[in-house]
Amino acid sequence: MAIVSLENIHSPADLRSLDRSGLHEIAAQLREFVLQSVSKTGGHLSSNLGTVELTIALHHVFNTPYDRIVWDVGHQSYPHKILTGRREQMATLRQKGGISGFPKRSESEFDAFGTAHSSTSISAVLGMAVASRNAGLDRQHIAVIGDGAMTAGMAFEALNNAGVTSGVNVLVILNDNDMSISPPVGALNHYFARLLSGRFYATAKNVGRAVLQHVPPVLEFARRIEGHAKGIVSPATLFEELGFNYVGPIDGHDLDALVPTLENLKQLGGLQFLHVVTKKGQGYKLAEADPVLYHGPGKFDPSVGIQKPKEPPKQTFTKVFGNWLCDMAESDPRLLGITPAMREGSGMVEFERRFPARYFDVGIAEQHAVTFAAGLACEGQKPVVAIYSTFLQRGYDQLIHDVALQNLDVTFALDRAGIVGADGATHAGNYDIAYLRCVPNMVVATPSDENETRLLLSTCYQHPGPASVRYPRGAGCGATVNAGLDVVPVGKGVVRREGQHIALLVFGTLASAAVQAAENLGATVVDMRFVKPLDETLLQDLAGTHQAFVTIEDAAIMGGAGSAVLEFFSQKGIACPVLQLGLPDIFIDHGDQAAILAELGLNAAGIEASIRERFPNLLPLVA
Amino acid sequence: MAIVSLENIHSPADLRSLDRSGLHEIAAQLREFVLQSVSKTGGHLSSNLGTVELTIALHHVFNTPYDRIVWDVGHQSYPHKILTGRREQMATLRQKGGISGFPKRSESEFDAFGTAHSSTSISAVLGMAVASRNAGLDRQHIAVIGDGAMTAGMAFEALNNAGVTSGVNVLVILNDNDMSISPPVGALNHYFARLLSGRFYATAKNVGRAVLQHVPPVLEFARRIEGHAKGIVSPATLFEELGFNYVGPIDGHDLDALVPTLENLKQLGGLQFLHVVTKKGQGYKLAEADPVLYHGPGKFDPSVGIQKPKEPPKQTFTKVFGNWLCDMAESDPRLLGITPAMREGSGMVEFERRFPARYFDVGIAEQHAVTFAAGLACEGQKPVVAIYSTFLQRGYDQLIHDVALQNLDVTFALDRAGIVGADGATHAGNYDIAYLRCVPNMVVATPSDENETRLLLSTCYQHPGPASVRYPRGAGCGATVNAGLDVVPVGKGVVRREGQHIALLVFGTLASAAVQAAENLGATVVDMRFVKPLDETLLQDLAGTHQAFVTIEDAAIMGGAGSAVLEFFSQKGIACPVLQLGLPDIFIDHGDQAAILAELGLNAAGIEASIRERFPNLLPLVA
Repeated sequence: MAIVSLENIHSPADLRSLDRSGLHEIAAQLREFVLQSVSKTGGHLSSNLGTVELTIALHHVFNTPYDRIVWDVGHQSYPHKILTGRREQMATLRQKGGISGFPKRSESEFDAFGTAHSSTSISAVLGMAVASRNAGLDRQHIAVIGDGAMTAGMAFEALNNAGVTSGVNVLVILNDNDMSISPPVGALNHYFARLLSGRFYATAKNVGRAVLQHVPPVLEFARRIEGHAKGIVSPATLFEELGFNYVGPIDGHDLDALVPTLENLKQLGGLQFLHVVTKKGQGYKLAEADPVLYHGPGKFDPSVGIQKPKEPPKQTFTKVFGNWLCDMAESDPRLLGITPAMREGSGMVEFERRFPARYFDVGIAEQHAVTFAAGLACEGQKPVVAIYSTFLQRGYDQLIHDVALQNLDVTFALDRAGIVGADGATHAGNYDIAYLRCVPNMVVATPSDENETRLLLSTCYQHPGPASVRYPRGAGCGATVNAGLDVVPVGKGVVRREGQHIALLVFGTLASAAVQAAENLGATVVDMRFVKPLDETLLQDLAGTHQAFVTIEDAAIMGGAGSAVLEFFSQKGIACPVLQLGLPDIFIDHGDQAAILAELGLNAAGIEASIRERFPNLLPLVA
Repeated sequence: MAIVSLENIHSPADLRSLDRSGLHEIAAQLREFVLQSVSKTGGHLSSNLGTVELTIALHHVFNTPYDRIVWDVGHQSYPHKILTGRREQMATLRQKGGISGFPKRSESEFDAFGTAHSSTSISAVLGMAVASRNAGLDRQHIAVIGDGAMTAGMAFEALNNAGVTSGVNVLVILNDNDMSISPPVGALNHYFARLLSGRFYATAKNVGRAVLQHVPPVLEFARRIEGHAKGIVSPATLFEELGFNYVGPIDGHDLDALVPTLENLKQLGGLQFLHVVTKKGQGYKLAEADPVLYHGPGKFDPSVGIQKPKEPPKQTFTKVFGNWLCDMAESDPRLLGITPAMREGSGMVEFERRFPARYFDVGIAEQHAVTFAAGLACEGQKPVVAIYSTFLQRGYDQLIHDVALQNLDVTFALDRAGIVGADGATHAGNYDIAYLRCVPNMVVATPSDENETRLLLSTCYQHPGPASVRYPRGAGCGATVNAGLDVVPVGKGVVRREGQHIALLVFGTLASAAVQAAENLGATVVDMRFVKPLDETLLQDLAGTHQAFVTIEDAAIMGGAGSAVLEFFSQKGIACPVLQLGLPDIFIDHGDQAAILAELGLNAAGIEASIRERFPNLLPLVA
């Protein structure tokens, strides 16, 4: 037999010819490859170190891509990518033209379903399984879902539906990360912990490892199943109540447990639920010790680990929000902060530390987050829901039906609005202006820099009704953020630069690029601050003194802020040409944020060029 | 003591002074009042007959409005309305200016939270309970939720979060309707059935009724609680696993069981879960026998029941869809029909009867419905998701992230688009054009009549990507629907009337009103058919031959179809005045559909008047 080497694994078929010791060898090499690869490109690390053995076992046992594997969220799918012919492309991960950080149907036939937002996997595999049943295919459909993702209502909806769907092969693998990231939230996580502390797992972990190595796996498995059937091992689990056969928990880093268990589950078919326990960061001590730090690192040297940067990086909008939240909480005891499981991403670590009783991580549960906030607001509290633009899509109905319709005082802080960069199309924050603007009572604010973000957060917070503030991923132009909790008038813009002929109406952080462009064009620049209510007085005044308008936003043009301007002009019969600059009607792939904006013509040069092209007669000759 | 009479119950305080026999008397009168009242106004009947005793017991035991009751969905809240000072207003139910068919905060201090969409109640009461805890108030917070509503993921998210929230008083009352409506869907409903068939309930139902009457209720209750604590009665229920104290099931029509149980639960506080079994239609034999028919009847004579109308009513759009679905299913075996628990409302009864294996009621689970469809589409099936416009808000993220981004072939049939009439603002189908139009890859079709609905359903179904067809509640203008499954070109409109000066661009069923207006105005009328893709060629042609445009849609103007036209004209530099007619930026209360449209100026006369006002110089003198 040839030397077992990851380099010889070109597809899962190559894995299937290996014996158990070969798989062990591949696991060691794959773990090292993941570590080296991610340390060079940045990306998700902890979660991928945790799925090395599980991925190998799945592709070894199942007949992929004929059998379908859907990786929930998908940021644990790097080992899967490496084993399915994309090893060399890992060097291009999350870069423009390179492979995605998530499974993607257009990238590989092994990526059965594109994922990124949490908790879609069971619904997707159930659909696939029904299709296979209808076609008479003997195919397996596997959802690999984390304990966090399992708390989302959508996963429950899918389990509930699957439990009464006959004739389908669905294997749900709960990848329980041993509670190593963030404190577990939700009663379900407590339940998982109780399952872990139950008799069987204790046996398997402390005594049974030897047993597992010596008892023929099929017998061992049969014993367990029988135990379950008789209710000896434990009372029926929640998953059994919902119609699944529950197996586990088993050690997700132990190929000698995983392979035979999966082989048996494959034989059984039907509705199977396997509880696997893994450790985020497994095998890289630094990541094991701090899986949050190594969740999604940038480039680093694996031999020394992530180093604190010598000079502090530019302040991100997330940080501006986090600081504001603490300051406002200090001044107003009614403020409560809510996050659907994004404490770090939304900049709420410090807030939780300082105001633990006023911090609510409700789990991956955007629907609940919004209506929970509505309930609080009914009783005079002032909730702030911190949520990514793309994830508010999950709470859209609740925002309309529970918050806006009742005109409740809830503030939405929308992080990751506009172009998100490396996460790509799945996380696009492009649609919020369109989907929020059409909702009565909503205030929609688009701060132009860091200081404006703080101002508009304070303003929207003090506004006694539903309001949203959107700001992008990463750092801004470096504006100094003033202390204090000043507010500005709702629905009023400010002229940033007095020019002539053309007025640039800016909604959001493309303002600095717009000002640069305007310098060359001699144009007026207005920071509109609010998409809704729109500063109609200012627009009317400007229409009297300018011959053309340019609307600029880092959001979808369709239905966006520029369209609000068009609607107003149309309503007033103001016949003034308007050029709308913003995001085109396409899904925009991953890549560098600034490079994407430049490519879309949304940097200073691009904005200037578009304006010159559209309004050549209103402008001075090119400098 | 005075004669016990419903007429003397002006608020729940009056209930609290009654003894048990008085409560029984009120129950009899209240049930009769509900029946008589709904038979005169139309509205929800079966669900309200089912909650008579529960409502009396709740207001008798709890200190409302200080204690908070949230009625999930809210179509079972008529007894609550009658007992909380709105008895006489029941004659105005669901009519313009009258009281709402749902709880509404602005209507009464007893309506703690506005509901209508399913499964929001637990989130809302948890928010209220946290607020009370923070304020140090000893208050009770009660969510009354049906077994159907419990299947929505949102309810699970809330239970999961509540289970780890300390120091709150939350009582969840599962109002289990004895499986009398539609076949139960979902594994959870099977689970409820198992709880019902368990030992305790059998005892209580068959033997225990006598026991309950003779044993002091507190002792009986204590016995049950003790049994639970020791695990004697049954293994831990799912709700206990999530951190609640589970009590039940008890008979929800037995005041002698309800009152003492609720009194005890009130004393206990904390996280309580009461499983109550009721019968939809209880006490009115015709409704008990056919709770679906009596779910939301129009006016009828209670002494004879609902009569089949002598002549068939005009065909509804729902029926047009239902017929189309069967015909297309006949011709294409890949078609599968999906509904989130709206078989009747979406017109799928006949489809289920004829194609049971291709019919999927996934429960109240809009998120899952959409991603399940995506999974099916991945494997070459052709799913049709039938969903109300307002409920697709619940699946918005899934539509973007799972369907549109992957460009999967899923057809969305959006019923109840635009003004919904008696259901009011909570069910408004006003936002779909705005929230769908901004999503890349989506086709958005707006048929102008019944025949066009069939044509555009076929067209969108055959389009190999995500597509939506929106149509309103109720009947249309009476257009003859042609058989066959013809398609039309995607993104192409048709000129319906050749006129001059002004072109009316119609998106949807306001077309007949627009044509009427155009007759008087001598204007052109175009049935645009599609909001997206927009027929740009046609628009460009019309711009060359007309001096003004009017866009007409029964959807929010903000971000709507008219804005799509403005965007196109703006992009092309076409300076042509456009009048946008559609729904204003307000939440529109319940009332008669046609009357609301007329009031908004969206009938023929209103459209004509708006156009004459805006473009007086382009028009002939008023006839």
